[in-house]
Amino acid sequence: MSDHYIVISADTHAGLPSEGYREYLEARYHQAFDDFLADRQARRDELLEMNYEYITGWETENAEGLRGGFDPEQRDKELDADGVVAEVIFPDADAITGMAGPPFGAGLSAGEITDPDLAFAGAAAHNRFLVELCGHHPERRGGVGLVPITHDIERSVREIEWLAEQPGIRGVMVPTMWREHLPYNHPDYDPVWAACQAAHLPVHTHSGEAPQEEYNGNIGIYLAEAAWWPARPAWHLLFSGVFERFPELKFVVTESGAYWAADFMWKWDQYMGGGHTTKKMAALLEGKISRLPSEYFGSNIFIGASTMSKEELRRRYIIGCDVMMWGTDYPHPEGTWPHTVSRLRADFGALPVDDTADLLGLTAARCYGFDLEALRPLAERVGPTPEDLGQDPALRSDPEEVRRARWWKEDYGLGG
Amino acid sequence: MSDHYIVISADTHAGLPSEGYREYLEARYHQAFDDFLADRQARRDELLEMNYEYITGWETENAEGLRGGFDPEQRDKELDADGVVAEVIFPDADAITGMAGPPFGAGLSAGEITDPDLAFAGAAAHNRFLVELCGHHPERRGGVGLVPITHDIERSVREIEWLAEQPGIRGVMVPTMWREHLPYNHPDYDPVWAACQAAHLPVHTHSGEAPQEEYNGNIGIYLAEAAWWPARPAWHLLFSGVFERFPELKFVVTESGAYWAADFMWKWDQYMGGGHTTKKMAALLEGKISRLPSEYFGSNIFIGASTMSKEELRRRYIIGCDVMMWGTDYPHPEGTWPHTVSRLRADFGALPVDDTADLLGLTAARCYGFDLEALRPLAERVGPTPEDLGQDPALRSDPEEVRRARWWKEDYGLGG
Repeated sequence: MSDHYIVISADTHAGLPSEGYREYLEARYHQAFDDFLADRQARRDELLEMNYEYITGWETENAEGLRGGFDPEQRDKELDADGVVAEVIFPDADAITGMAGPPFGAGLSAGEITDPDLAFAGAAAHNRFLVELCGHHPERRGGVGLVPITHDIERSVREIEWLAEQPGIRGVMVPTMWREHLPYNHPDYDPVWAACQAAHLPVHTHSGEAPQEEYNGNIGIYLAEAAWWPARPAWHLLFSGVFERFPELKFVVTESGAYWAADFMWKWDQYMGGGHTTKKMAALLEGKISRLPSEYFGSNIFIGASTMSKEELRRRYIIGCDVMMWGTDYPHPEGTWPHTVSRLRADFGALPVDDTADLLGLTAARCYGFDLEALRPLAERVGPTPEDLGQDPALRSDPEEVRRARWWKEDYGLGG
Repeated sequence: MSDHYIVISADTHAGLPSEGYREYLEARYHQAFDDFLADRQARRDELLEMNYEYITGWETENAEGLRGGFDPEQRDKELDADGVVAEVIFPDADAITGMAGPPFGAGLSAGEITDPDLAFAGAAAHNRFLVELCGHHPERRGGVGLVPITHDIERSVREIEWLAEQPGIRGVMVPTMWREHLPYNHPDYDPVWAACQAAHLPVHTHSGEAPQEEYNGNIGIYLAEAAWWPARPAWHLLFSGVFERFPELKFVVTESGAYWAADFMWKWDQYMGGGHTTKKMAALLEGKISRLPSEYFGSNIFIGASTMSKEELRRRYIIGCDVMMWGTDYPHPEGTWPHTVSRLRADFGALPVDDTADLLGLTAARCYGFDLEALRPLAERVGPTPEDLGQDPALRSDPEEVRRARWWKEDYGLGG
């Protein structure tokens, strides 16, 4: 056994400089695309005016590495240097001024698009680019295709079926918010879940979208709610019985933290028998779920926790090392690139190696079907070792500590 | 010093059997009221069909005590027997079949009303009844008047000013959800906050309402979100600077749990300086808040935590004994009535007496302005002692443990 960790970043981003999407876009949308580009440029100019030094500083210092946002060879260099062997790729490479996102905003804020044709056209353009990118070294890519399911179920199913056949595509992303469309608990979406299950493509939401129109420009409100909206589909799917009808379906919440899962599992499990006031609820949930809600985590629900906080690492046995997945957020400035190994050293130094292996890659490999044997030679070359992270290489997790972590099960006499 | 706890229930309910509201309602709404009553009766009949034994069992066994929902003398007997000296009174006494709620649903689901006239008429009818109820022993009552602020700001201000003059009225409740109206972060609501501040009336939301129209009948989804919607105004007020403009304003979230406050405080404080990715946020929040978000808890934000869970009691120093307030939820079946003292014995037995005194009454007294000296003689007669709760009467909280509870402040070098 090698002692190099197989680090799979469960959260990276890729995208062409906006104009570059033109050749991937059907010609009849080029006029609308011109308008979109003008809007984006105006927004960038505004942001530059507010924050010129920070933006140009980041872009100049990292010019070469940022090219990896769309150039697969540069991308591999960046991943290698960062100790990362594989990645799960979301859209919108430019998190600062939004200049490397799919046409019409079809990426992280897809739910805001009101015209279904633009939503699908923008998604398809990005998907074509993504398939090309993932065609280079598909064993280390996990492209997440864009599917605006709120707009059209049948068209979505066709896009999913096409994505399923492309090398290196390992997931689909749906709009974070359904807005005025059908909520994700509605059975009309079943063909979408069926297609994703059949294709072994986990369904994702990713932070970014929120009801900004309600915030009146108050950024603190956005911050306070930013994790809730992307997580919301998890319980809409769970409690409407989607994971009963599609037991192999996986739903992943990405870059929205993981801390909240600890309390959610406790509260949700409690409905199933936590005292006289909630026992009556268990009957009402019958037929919707067959296991404790917490037991769907790690089989149907996963968390792309990106650059986990220390507190989330402390809660790892509650949330589950089989649930949380590390991500570098490359090439976003709020991520760990290009200093991932030193950040891992700071945050994972005291952790057991088996937990670390799960959190950094093995859980992602299981969730996304990465071929560990194919990745191992690369890990030998670029992956950090326990020593690189300042860890005690002999330290292993204590099974009793793991078993007791979900404390409420014993308190409420739930499960085994 | 007496050793009897002054127990103030921060969550009780009162309401007339629905038909009884007629005499409190302006005559021009009587026709609409007939329709409303017919709807309610039909809903009750439906529920009875589903759950006859449970409903009639509860109503028969507790017939006398349930009369305290509207009869002040019976009510005092029930409070006395339950060890409670004062109470904060919300609408909707019948939590099972909804037959003791304000006209037109103007109580816990007021946000669902679409006609402003019906919203105000229903609220006014309940407020008249409530003022009568609170007129008996106003020193032990904290009536929470209903004000549907989403519909009309000026009319709301007039209702608040009227409520402010009524003995025993100690708060106002606003719709939990603003729906298609202005979000509570909007400065147009300032006259409402100004009136509440001037009248020393804390503003409340209470669990009950949620976007049920999105749930397609999946009760688990309601349970998973039930606490979030009532809590939501807290951060909309905080991060839009309402507590800067109205520093004496109090906002209370009632019967929506308290557990969530622990993570919210951590995450919100983090925006103010928790690392390189969020430091840039602090600048954007400037002018909106002048203290750490957690520091608004206990001064501007309070939690009517009702029948606290053991886990919430374990987190009491993070959430704050100066923030959380016990409530019996009388006369709802999910509350502790008529067995409050035995429940307190089970859950508070190991707690220090100073924490217990805060959680059971002193924090509520401070939040609502109850006169402790006026209540003390009654507490001598009916209030439980530490011995009644199985406590060690000499046990006091450890100030160092309290200071360290909000662990993130030290981790992030925040505050003192």
